[in-house]
Amino acid sequence: MIRVVLLGGGNLASHLANAFLNSSSIELVQIYNRTLAHIENKKNRVSITNTIQNLKKADIYIIATTDATIESISNELLTNTLVVHTSGAMPNSAIKQDRKGVFYPLQTFTKNEEIDFREIPICLEATYTEDYFLLEKIAKELSPKVYSMNSEQRKKLHIAAVFVNNFVNHMYSIGEDICQENNIPFEILYPLIEETFHKITKQSPKEVRTGPAIRKDEKTLALHKSQLNSNQKKIYTLISEAIANTK
Amino acid sequence: MIRVVLLGGGNLASHLANAFLNSSSIELVQIYNRTLAHIENKKNRVSITNTIQNLKKADIYIIATTDATIESISNELLTNTLVVHTSGAMPNSAIKQDRKGVFYPLQTFTKNEEIDFREIPICLEATYTEDYFLLEKIAKELSPKVYSMNSEQRKKLHIAAVFVNNFVNHMYSIGEDICQENNIPFEILYPLIEETFHKITKQSPKEVRTGPAIRKDEKTLALHKSQLNSNQKKIYTLISEAIANTK
Repeated sequence: MIRVVLLGGGNLASHLANAFLNSSSIELVQIYNRTLAHIENKKNRVSITNTIQNLKKADIYIIATTDATIESISNELLTNTLVVHTSGAMPNSAIKQDRKGVFYPLQTFTKNEEIDFREIPICLEATYTEDYFLLEKIAKELSPKVYSMNSEQRKKLHIAAVFVNNFVNHMYSIGEDICQENNIPFEILYPLIEETFHKITKQSPKEVRTGPAIRKDEKTLALHKSQLNSNQKKIYTLISEAIANTK
Repeated sequence: MIRVVLLGGGNLASHLANAFLNSSSIELVQIYNRTLAHIENKKNRVSITNTIQNLKKADIYIIATTDATIESISNELLTNTLVVHTSGAMPNSAIKQDRKGVFYPLQTFTKNEEIDFREIPICLEATYTEDYFLLEKIAKELSPKVYSMNSEQRKKLHIAAVFVNNFVNHMYSIGEDICQENNIPFEILYPLIEETFHKITKQSPKEVRTGPAIRKDEKTLALHKSQLNSNQKKIYTLISEAIANTK
Protein backbone atom coordinates (compact mmCIF):
# COMPACT_ATOMS: atom_id res chain seq x y z
CA MET A 1 0.00 0.00 0.00
CA ILE A 2 1.19 3.48 -0.87
CA ARG A 3 0.44 5.83 2.01
CA VAL A 4 -0.79 9.24 0.82
CA VAL A 5 -1.49 12.48 2.70
CA LEU A 6 -3.55 14.96 0.71
CA LEU A 7 -3.44 18.72 1.37
CA GLY A 8 -6.33 20.81 0.11
CA GLY A 9 -10.10 21.12 0.24
CA GLY A 10 -11.01 22.40 -3.21
CA ASN A 11 -12.46 20.71 -6.31
CA LEU A 12 -9.39 18.81 -7.36
CA ALA A 13 -8.46 17.71 -3.82
CA SER A 14 -11.99 16.44 -3.26
CA HIS A 15 -11.98 14.43 -6.50
CA LEU A 16 -8.52 13.03 -5.75
CA ALA A 17 -9.59 12.03 -2.24
CA ASN A 18 -12.55 10.08 -3.62
CA ALA A 19 -10.37 8.36 -6.20
CA PHE A 20 -7.79 7.38 -3.59
CA LEU A 21 -10.47 6.14 -1.20
CA ASN A 22 -11.73 3.87 -3.98
CA SER A 23 -8.30 2.47 -4.78
CA SER A 24 -7.13 -0.82 -3.31
CA SER A 25 -3.42 -0.11 -3.53
CA ILE A 26 -3.44 3.43 -2.19
CA GLU A 27 -4.11 4.23 1.44
CA LEU A 28 -5.30 7.77 1.98
CA VAL A 29 -4.14 8.26 5.56
CA GLN A 30 -5.12 11.90 6.07
CA ILE A 31 -6.54 15.04 4.51
CA TYR A 32 -5.35 18.47 5.61
CA ASN A 33 -7.16 21.71 4.99
CA ARG A 34 -6.89 25.10 6.70
CA THR A 35 -10.67 25.29 6.84
CA LEU A 36 -11.90 22.02 8.31
CA ALA A 37 -15.47 22.58 7.14
CA HIS A 38 -14.45 21.96 3.51
CA ILE A 39 -13.26 18.44 4.23
CA GLU A 40 -15.61 17.41 7.00
CA ASN A 41 -17.73 15.37 4.61
CA LYS A 42 -14.76 12.94 4.42
CA LYS A 43 -14.19 12.55 8.16
CA ASN A 44 -15.99 9.21 8.44
CA ARG A 45 -13.66 7.63 5.92
CA VAL A 46 -10.30 9.26 6.67
CA SER A 47 -8.48 11.26 9.32
CA ILE A 48 -8.77 15.02 8.77
CA THR A 49 -6.81 17.93 10.24
CA ASN A 50 -6.30 21.66 9.92
CA THR A 51 -2.88 21.65 11.60
CA ILE A 52 0.18 20.96 9.47
CA GLN A 53 2.19 19.96 12.58
CA ASN A 54 -0.25 17.07 13.12
CA LEU A 55 0.32 15.43 9.73
CA LYS A 56 0.79 11.67 9.81
CA LYS A 57 3.69 9.86 8.20
CA ALA A 58 3.21 8.94 4.55
CA ASP A 59 5.10 7.91 1.40
CA ILE A 60 3.95 11.03 -0.39
CA TYR A 61 2.38 14.39 0.42
CA ILE A 62 0.21 15.80 -2.37
CA ILE A 63 -0.39 19.56 -2.18
CA ALA A 64 -3.61 20.08 -4.13
CA THR A 65 -4.23 23.70 -3.16
CA THR A 66 -4.34 26.92 -5.19
CA ASP A 67 -1.14 27.98 -6.96
CA ALA A 68 -0.50 30.88 -4.59
CA THR A 69 -0.38 28.70 -1.45
CA ILE A 70 1.80 25.82 -2.68
CA GLU A 71 5.14 27.35 -1.68
CA SER A 72 4.09 28.39 1.82
CA ILE A 73 2.53 24.99 2.55
CA SER A 74 5.65 23.26 1.26
CA ASN A 75 7.75 25.51 3.52
CA GLU A 76 5.74 24.46 6.57
CA LEU A 77 5.95 20.75 5.80
CA LEU A 78 8.58 18.96 7.85
CA THR A 79 9.34 15.76 5.96
CA ASN A 80 12.08 14.16 3.95
CA THR A 81 9.75 12.03 1.86
CA LEU A 82 8.33 12.95 -1.54
CA VAL A 83 6.24 16.16 -1.81
CA VAL A 84 4.39 17.06 -5.00
CA HIS A 85 1.92 19.69 -6.16
CA THR A 86 -0.92 19.33 -8.65
CA SER A 87 -0.65 22.59 -10.58
CA GLY A 88 -0.29 22.99 -14.31
CA ALA A 89 1.12 26.48 -14.01
CA MET A 90 3.67 26.13 -11.20
CA PRO A 91 7.19 24.76 -11.70
CA ASN A 92 8.63 21.79 -9.88
CA SER A 93 10.71 24.27 -7.87
CA ALA A 94 7.63 25.58 -6.05
CA ILE A 95 8.21 22.57 -3.78
CA LYS A 96 10.95 23.29 -1.25
CA GLN A 97 11.76 19.71 -0.23
CA ASP A 98 14.67 17.91 -1.88
CA ARG A 99 12.42 15.08 -3.06
CA LYS A 100 9.99 17.07 -5.16
CA GLY A 101 7.63 16.44 -8.03
CA VAL A 102 4.40 17.27 -9.82
CA PHE A 103 1.20 15.26 -10.20
CA TYR A 104 -0.95 17.27 -12.63
CA PRO A 105 -4.30 15.91 -13.78
CA LEU A 106 -5.25 17.88 -16.89
CA GLN A 107 -8.96 18.47 -16.65
CA THR A 108 -11.49 21.09 -15.70
CA PHE A 109 -13.10 20.07 -12.43
CA THR A 110 -16.54 21.09 -11.31
CA LYS A 111 -17.60 20.75 -7.68
CA ASN A 112 -20.16 18.06 -6.90
CA GLU A 113 -19.87 16.54 -10.34
CA GLU A 114 -18.58 12.98 -10.61
CA ILE A 115 -15.26 12.67 -12.39
CA ASP A 116 -14.02 9.56 -14.15
CA PHE A 117 -10.27 9.75 -13.68
CA ARG A 118 -9.77 7.02 -16.29
CA GLU A 119 -10.46 9.65 -18.93
CA ILE A 120 -8.08 12.22 -17.47
CA PRO A 121 -4.44 12.53 -18.57
CA ILE A 122 -2.05 12.84 -15.64
CA CYS A 123 1.26 14.64 -16.24
CA LEU A 124 4.13 13.67 -13.95
CA GLU A 125 7.48 15.13 -13.03
CA ALA A 126 9.96 14.20 -10.30
CA THR A 127 13.56 15.09 -9.52
CA TYR A 128 14.53 11.52 -8.61
CA THR A 129 13.74 8.52 -10.78
CA GLU A 130 12.57 6.44 -7.85
CA ASP A 131 10.06 9.13 -6.94
CA TYR A 132 8.92 9.28 -10.56
CA PHE A 133 8.13 5.56 -10.45
CA LEU A 134 6.15 6.03 -7.24
CA LEU A 135 4.15 8.85 -8.88
CA GLU A 136 3.60 6.67 -11.92
CA LYS A 137 2.24 3.85 -9.74
CA ILE A 138 -0.24 6.22 -8.11
CA ALA A 139 -1.23 7.84 -11.40
CA LYS A 140 -1.81 4.49 -13.12
CA GLU A 141 -4.16 3.53 -10.31
CA LEU A 142 -6.37 6.40 -11.48
CA SER A 143 -5.86 6.63 -15.24
CA PRO A 144 -4.19 4.78 -18.12
CA LYS A 145 -3.25 8.16 -19.62
CA VAL A 146 0.01 8.98 -17.85
CA TYR A 147 2.57 11.34 -19.38
CA SER A 148 6.06 12.39 -18.31
CA MET A 149 6.44 16.13 -18.66
CA ASN A 150 8.96 18.69 -17.45
CA SER A 151 8.04 22.05 -15.90
CA GLU A 152 8.60 23.95 -19.14
CA GLN A 153 6.33 21.65 -21.13
CA ARG A 154 3.68 21.71 -18.43
CA LYS A 155 3.69 25.50 -18.45
CA LYS A 156 3.11 25.49 -22.22
CA LEU A 157 0.45 22.81 -21.97
CA HIS A 158 -1.34 24.96 -19.45
CA ILE A 159 -1.41 27.85 -21.93
CA ALA A 160 -2.68 25.55 -24.68
CA ALA A 161 -5.40 24.45 -22.26
CA VAL A 162 -6.50 28.06 -21.81
CA PHE A 163 -7.08 28.29 -25.57
CA VAL A 164 -8.93 24.99 -25.99
CA ASN A 165 -10.94 25.29 -22.78
CA ASN A 166 -11.43 28.86 -21.47
CA PHE A 167 -11.35 30.55 -24.86
CA VAL A 168 -13.46 27.91 -26.55
CA ASN A 169 -15.97 28.35 -23.75
CA HIS A 170 -16.04 32.07 -24.50
CA MET A 171 -16.83 31.32 -28.16
CA TYR A 172 -19.72 29.14 -26.92
CA SER A 173 -20.80 32.03 -24.72
CA ILE A 174 -20.94 34.46 -27.66
CA GLY A 175 -22.84 31.85 -29.68
CA GLU A 176 -25.33 31.57 -26.85
CA ASP A 177 -25.72 35.38 -26.65
CA ILE A 178 -26.47 35.61 -30.37
CA CYS A 179 -29.02 32.80 -30.10
CA GLN A 180 -30.75 34.29 -27.06
CA GLU A 181 -31.00 37.73 -28.66
CA ASN A 182 -32.80 36.15 -31.61
CA ASN A 183 -35.04 33.64 -29.85
CA ILE A 184 -33.10 30.67 -31.16
CA PRO A 185 -32.63 27.71 -28.79
CA PHE A 186 -28.86 27.40 -28.19
CA GLU A 187 -29.18 23.59 -28.21
CA ILE A 188 -29.54 23.76 -32.01
CA LEU A 189 -25.78 24.28 -32.02
CA TYR A 190 -24.83 21.27 -29.86
CA PRO A 191 -24.46 18.77 -32.73
CA LEU A 192 -22.28 21.23 -34.66
CA ILE A 193 -20.17 21.85 -31.57
CA GLU A 194 -19.76 18.14 -30.96
CA GLU A 195 -18.80 17.46 -34.57
CA THR A 196 -16.27 20.33 -34.45
CA PHE A 197 -14.57 18.46 -31.63
CA HIS A 198 -14.84 14.99 -33.20
CA LYS A 199 -13.24 16.18 -36.42
CA ILE A 200 -10.00 17.22 -34.74
CA THR A 201 -9.57 13.84 -33.08
CA LYS A 202 -9.23 12.41 -36.58
CA GLN A 203 -7.48 15.21 -38.48
CA SER A 204 -5.46 18.26 -37.51
CA PRO A 205 -7.60 21.36 -36.84
CA LYS A 206 -5.76 23.05 -39.72
CA GLU A 207 -6.95 20.40 -42.16
CA VAL A 208 -10.62 20.73 -41.31
CA ARG A 209 -11.01 24.49 -41.51
CA THR A 210 -14.26 25.71 -43.06
CA GLY A 211 -16.19 28.99 -43.02
CA PRO A 212 -15.98 32.46 -44.54
CA ALA A 213 -12.55 33.38 -43.15
CA ILE A 214 -10.64 30.48 -44.69
CA ARG A 215 -12.57 30.92 -47.98
CA LYS A 216 -11.66 34.63 -47.83
CA ASP A 217 -15.35 35.29 -48.47
CA GLU A 218 -15.21 39.05 -47.88
CA LYS A 219 -18.90 39.56 -48.59
CA THR A 220 -20.01 37.20 -45.82
CA LEU A 221 -17.35 38.49 -43.42
CA ALA A 222 -18.59 42.06 -43.90
CA LEU A 223 -22.20 41.00 -43.57
CA HIS A 224 -21.49 39.16 -40.32
CA LYS A 225 -19.51 42.04 -38.84
CA SER A 226 -22.30 44.48 -39.59
CA GLN A 227 -24.62 42.48 -37.33
CA LEU A 228 -22.37 42.11 -34.27
CA ASN A 229 -21.95 44.42 -31.30
CA SER A 230 -18.61 46.16 -30.95
CA ASN A 231 -17.02 43.59 -28.60
CA GLN A 232 -18.16 40.67 -30.70
CA LYS A 233 -16.98 42.44 -33.85
CA LYS A 234 -13.45 42.91 -32.46
CA ILE A 235 -13.18 39.19 -31.76
CA TYR A 236 -14.76 38.26 -35.09
CA THR A 237 -12.32 40.47 -36.99
CA LEU A 238 -9.18 39.37 -35.16
CA ILE A 239 -9.87 35.63 -35.34
CA SER A 240 -11.03 35.80 -38.95
CA GLU A 241 -7.79 37.52 -39.89
CA ALA A 242 -5.81 34.95 -37.93
CA ILE A 243 -7.59 32.09 -39.72
CA ALA A 244 -7.04 33.69 -43.13
CA ASN A 245 -3.33 34.19 -42.36
CA THR A 246 -2.64 30.74 -40.90
CA LYS A 247 -0.71 28.53 -43.29
CA MET B 1 -44.07 9.46 -52.21
CA ILE B 2 -42.60 12.96 -52.26
CA ARG B 3 -40.76 13.49 -55.56
CA VAL B 4 -37.51 15.43 -55.08
CA VAL B 5 -35.05 16.87 -57.59
CA LEU B 6 -31.71 17.81 -56.07
CA LEU B 7 -29.42 20.43 -57.60
CA GLY B 8 -25.75 20.36 -56.61
CA GLY B 9 -22.72 18.10 -56.51
CA GLY B 10 -20.90 19.24 -53.36
CA ASN B 11 -20.63 17.81 -49.84
CA LEU B 12 -24.09 18.68 -48.64
CA ALA B 13 -25.81 17.66 -51.89
CA SER B 14 -24.03 14.33 -51.82
CA HIS B 15 -25.06 13.62 -48.22
CA LEU B 16 -28.64 14.69 -48.91
CA ALA B 17 -28.79 12.44 -51.99
CA ASN B 18 -27.70 9.44 -49.93
CA ALA B 19 -30.24 10.23 -47.21
CA PHE B 20 -33.07 10.58 -49.75
CA LEU B 21 -32.07 7.37 -51.54
CA ASN B 22 -32.32 5.55 -48.21
CA SER B 23 -35.76 6.97 -47.40
CA SER B 24 -38.90 5.01 -48.17
CA SER B 25 -41.24 7.99 -48.43
CA ILE B 26 -39.02 10.22 -50.57
CA GLU B 27 -38.34 9.50 -54.21
CA LEU B 28 -35.18 11.19 -55.45
CA VAL B 29 -36.05 11.44 -59.12
CA GLN B 30 -33.00 13.30 -60.41
CA ILE B 31 -29.75 15.03 -59.50
CA TYR B 32 -28.51 18.02 -61.48
CA ASN B 33 -24.96 19.34 -61.47
CA ARG B 34 -23.11 21.54 -63.98
CA THR B 35 -20.15 19.15 -63.82
CA LEU B 36 -21.50 15.65 -64.36
CA ALA B 37 -18.34 14.02 -63.02
CA HIS B 38 -19.19 15.07 -59.46
CA ILE B 39 -22.46 13.15 -59.44
CA GLU B 40 -21.58 10.22 -61.69
CA ASN B 41 -21.11 7.94 -58.69
CA LYS B 42 -24.90 8.16 -58.22
CA LYS B 43 -25.92 7.37 -61.79
CA ASN B 44 -26.75 3.73 -61.12
CA ARG B 45 -29.32 4.69 -58.51
CA VAL B 46 -30.86 7.90 -59.90
CA SER B 47 -31.17 9.90 -63.12
CA ILE B 48 -28.44 12.55 -63.44
CA THR B 49 -28.17 15.57 -65.73
CA ASN B 50 -26.08 18.69 -66.34
CA THR B 51 -28.82 20.49 -68.26
CA ILE B 52 -31.40 22.49 -66.32
CA GLN B 53 -33.82 22.34 -69.26
CA ASN B 54 -33.91 18.55 -68.90
CA LEU B 55 -35.11 18.53 -65.30
CA LYS B 56 -37.92 16.10 -64.51
CA LYS B 57 -41.14 17.06 -62.78
CA ALA B 58 -41.06 16.93 -58.98
CA ASP B 59 -42.87 18.16 -55.86
CA ILE B 60 -39.82 20.08 -54.74
CA TYR B 61 -36.52 21.32 -56.19
CA ILE B 62 -33.73 21.57 -53.63
CA ILE B 63 -30.86 23.86 -54.65
CA ALA B 64 -27.90 22.60 -52.57
CA THR B 65 -25.17 24.58 -54.31
CA THR B 66 -22.80 27.32 -53.11
CA ASP B 67 -24.39 30.56 -51.91
CA ALA B 68 -23.19 32.52 -54.95
CA THR B 69 -24.97 30.28 -57.49
CA ILE B 70 -28.38 29.91 -55.81
CA GLU B 71 -29.98 32.95 -57.44
CA SER B 72 -28.82 32.18 -60.97
CA ILE B 73 -29.92 28.55 -60.75
CA SER B 74 -33.29 29.64 -59.38
CA ASN B 75 -33.60 32.09 -62.27
CA GLU B 76 -33.05 29.32 -64.80
CA LEU B 77 -35.55 26.96 -63.21
CA LEU B 78 -38.88 26.89 -65.00
CA THR B 79 -41.36 25.50 -62.50
CA ASN B 80 -44.28 26.60 -60.42
CA THR B 81 -43.72 24.03 -57.68
CA LEU B 82 -41.77 24.58 -54.48
CA VAL B 83 -38.09 25.61 -54.78
CA VAL B 84 -35.82 25.82 -51.74
CA HIS B 85 -32.15 26.39 -51.02
CA THR B 86 -30.01 24.86 -48.26
CA SER B 87 -27.93 27.84 -47.19
CA GLY B 88 -27.63 29.25 -43.69
CA ALA B 89 -26.44 32.61 -44.93
CA MET B 90 -28.84 33.36 -47.81
CA PRO B 91 -32.34 34.77 -47.32
CA ASN B 92 -35.51 33.14 -48.52
CA SER B 93 -35.64 35.81 -51.23
CA ALA B 94 -32.63 34.32 -53.04
CA ILE B 95 -35.22 31.99 -54.56
CA LYS B 96 -37.04 33.70 -57.44
CA GLN B 97 -40.08 31.39 -57.63
CA ASP B 98 -43.29 32.37 -55.89
CA ARG B 99 -43.35 29.14 -53.88
CA LYS B 100 -40.02 29.50 -52.09
CA GLY B 101 -38.41 28.18 -48.96
CA VAL B 102 -35.27 27.11 -47.14
CA PHE B 103 -34.12 23.66 -45.99
CA TYR B 104 -30.99 24.29 -43.93
CA PRO B 105 -29.23 21.39 -42.18
CA LEU B 106 -26.97 22.93 -39.56
CA GLN B 107 -23.81 20.91 -39.60
CA THR B 108 -20.26 20.93 -40.91
CA PHE B 109 -20.01 18.36 -43.70
CA THR B 110 -16.84 16.60 -44.73
CA LYS B 111 -16.59 14.79 -48.05
CA ASN B 112 -16.48 11.00 -47.95
CA GLU B 113 -17.38 10.93 -44.29
CA GLU B 114 -20.65 9.25 -43.29
CA ILE B 115 -23.19 11.61 -41.81
CA ASP B 116 -25.98 10.59 -39.48
CA PHE B 117 -28.73 13.05 -40.32
CA ARG B 118 -30.65 12.01 -37.20
CA GLU B 119 -28.18 14.08 -35.19
CA ILE B 120 -28.47 17.15 -37.42
CA PRO B 121 -30.91 19.99 -36.75
CA ILE B 122 -32.77 21.08 -39.88
CA CYS B 123 -34.05 24.67 -40.02
CA LEU B 124 -37.05 25.30 -42.25
CA GLU B 125 -38.72 28.31 -43.80
CA ALA B 126 -41.42 28.62 -46.45
CA THR B 127 -43.63 31.41 -47.72
CA TYR B 128 -46.76 29.23 -47.86
CA THR B 129 -47.92 27.07 -44.97
CA GLU B 130 -48.65 24.11 -47.21
CA ASP B 131 -45.11 24.22 -48.50
CA TYR B 132 -43.83 24.43 -44.93
CA PHE B 133 -45.62 21.21 -44.08
CA LEU B 134 -44.12 19.51 -47.13
CA LEU B 135 -40.63 20.63 -46.03
CA GLU B 136 -41.37 19.40 -42.54
CA LYS B 137 -42.35 15.98 -43.86
CA ILE B 138 -39.10 15.70 -45.78
CA ALA B 139 -37.01 17.00 -42.86
CA LYS B 140 -38.59 14.61 -40.37
CA GLU B 141 -37.69 11.73 -42.66
CA LEU B 142 -34.06 12.64 -42.00
CA SER B 143 -33.96 14.02 -38.46
CA PRO B 144 -36.17 14.46 -35.39
CA LYS B 145 -34.55 17.86 -34.81
CA VAL B 146 -36.64 20.15 -37.00
CA TYR B 147 -36.92 23.88 -36.31
CA SER B 148 -38.95 26.65 -37.91
CA MET B 149 -36.78 29.69 -38.47
CA ASN B 150 -37.14 32.88 -40.49
CA SER B 151 -34.40 34.35 -42.69
CA GLU B 152 -33.31 36.85 -40.06
CA GLN B 153 -32.92 34.17 -37.37
CA ARG B 154 -31.11 31.86 -39.77
CA LYS B 155 -28.66 34.62 -40.63
CA LYS B 156 -27.91 35.12 -36.91
CA LEU B 157 -27.66 31.39 -36.29
CA HIS B 158 -25.12 31.21 -39.08
CA ILE B 159 -22.99 33.84 -37.35
CA ALA B 160 -23.29 32.00 -34.03
CA ALA B 161 -22.14 28.87 -35.87
CA VAL B 162 -19.02 30.68 -37.05
CA PHE B 163 -18.11 31.34 -33.41
CA VAL B 164 -18.79 27.85 -32.08
CA ASN B 165 -17.36 26.03 -35.07
CA ASN B 166 -14.81 28.00 -37.14
CA PHE B 167 -13.47 30.06 -34.24
CA VAL B 168 -13.43 27.17 -31.80
CA ASN B 169 -11.49 25.21 -34.41
CA HIS B 170 -8.96 28.04 -34.54
CA MET B 171 -8.53 27.85 -30.75
CA TYR B 172 -7.86 24.11 -31.20
CA SER B 173 -5.36 25.00 -33.90
CA ILE B 174 -3.42 27.36 -31.63
CA GLY B 175 -3.49 24.69 -28.90
CA GLU B 176 -2.04 22.22 -31.36
CA ASP B 177 0.68 24.69 -32.41
CA ILE B 178 1.75 25.24 -28.80
CA CYS B 179 1.85 21.49 -28.18
CA GLN B 180 3.84 20.74 -31.32
CA GLU B 181 6.40 23.44 -30.56
CA ASN B 182 7.00 21.82 -27.17
CA ASN B 183 6.91 18.14 -28.10
CA ILE B 184 3.65 17.54 -26.30
CA PRO B 185 1.16 15.15 -27.93
CA PHE B 186 -1.95 17.23 -28.78
CA GLU B 187 -4.16 14.26 -27.84
CA ILE B 188 -3.44 15.03 -24.16
CA LEU B 189 -5.95 17.86 -24.61
CA TYR B 190 -8.81 15.77 -26.07
CA PRO B 191 -10.45 14.89 -22.73
CA LEU B 192 -10.35 18.53 -21.63
CA ILE B 193 -11.82 19.62 -24.97
CA GLU B 194 -14.57 17.05 -24.73
CA GLU B 195 -15.42 18.03 -21.15
CA THR B 196 -15.50 21.72 -22.16
CA PHE B 197 -18.24 20.81 -24.61
CA HIS B 198 -20.13 18.48 -22.25
CA LYS B 199 -20.31 21.14 -19.55
CA ILE B 200 -22.23 23.58 -21.71
CA THR B 201 -24.89 21.02 -22.57
CA LYS B 202 -25.76 21.02 -18.85
CA GLN B 203 -25.12 24.63 -17.83
CA SER B 204 -24.78 27.93 -19.65
CA PRO B 205 -21.20 28.64 -20.85
CA LYS B 206 -21.24 31.72 -18.62
CA GLU B 207 -21.84 29.60 -15.53
CA VAL B 208 -18.91 27.26 -16.10
CA ARG B 209 -16.17 29.78 -16.76
CA THR B 210 -12.78 28.94 -15.25
CA GLY B 211 -9.21 30.06 -15.89
CA PRO B 212 -6.98 33.07 -15.24
CA ALA B 213 -9.13 35.64 -17.11
CA ILE B 214 -12.30 35.12 -15.09
CA ARG B 215 -10.25 34.95 -11.87
CA LYS B 216 -8.56 38.20 -12.95
CA ASP B 217 -5.27 36.43 -12.14
CA GLU B 218 -3.01 39.14 -13.60
CA LYS B 219 0.19 37.28 -12.74
CA THR B 220 -0.75 34.20 -14.76
CA LEU B 221 -2.14 36.29 -17.61
CA ALA B 222 1.14 38.21 -17.88
CA LEU B 223 3.18 35.01 -17.65
CA HIS B 224 1.15 33.38 -20.42
CA LYS B 225 1.37 36.41 -22.70
CA SER B 226 5.14 36.55 -22.30
CA GLN B 227 5.39 33.07 -23.83
CA LEU B 228 3.20 33.55 -26.90
CA ASN B 229 4.10 34.80 -30.35
CA SER B 230 2.65 38.15 -31.37
CA ASN B 231 -0.41 36.76 -33.19
CA GLN B 232 -1.25 34.39 -30.36
CA LYS B 233 -0.73 37.16 -27.84
CA LYS B 234 -3.23 39.46 -29.60
CA ILE B 235 -5.90 36.78 -29.43
CA TYR B 236 -5.00 35.85 -25.84
CA THR B 237 -5.26 39.49 -24.74
CA LEU B 238 -8.51 40.29 -26.53
CA ILE B 239 -10.39 37.17 -25.42
CA SER B 240 -9.08 37.37 -21.85
CA GLU B 241 -10.34 40.96 -21.64
CA ALA B 242 -13.67 39.91 -23.11
CA ILE B 243 -14.01 37.10 -20.57
CA ALA B 244 -13.11 39.40 -17.68
CA ASN B 245 -15.65 41.99 -18.87
CA THR B 246 -18.53 39.59 -19.54
CA LYS B 247 -21.19 39.78 -16.89
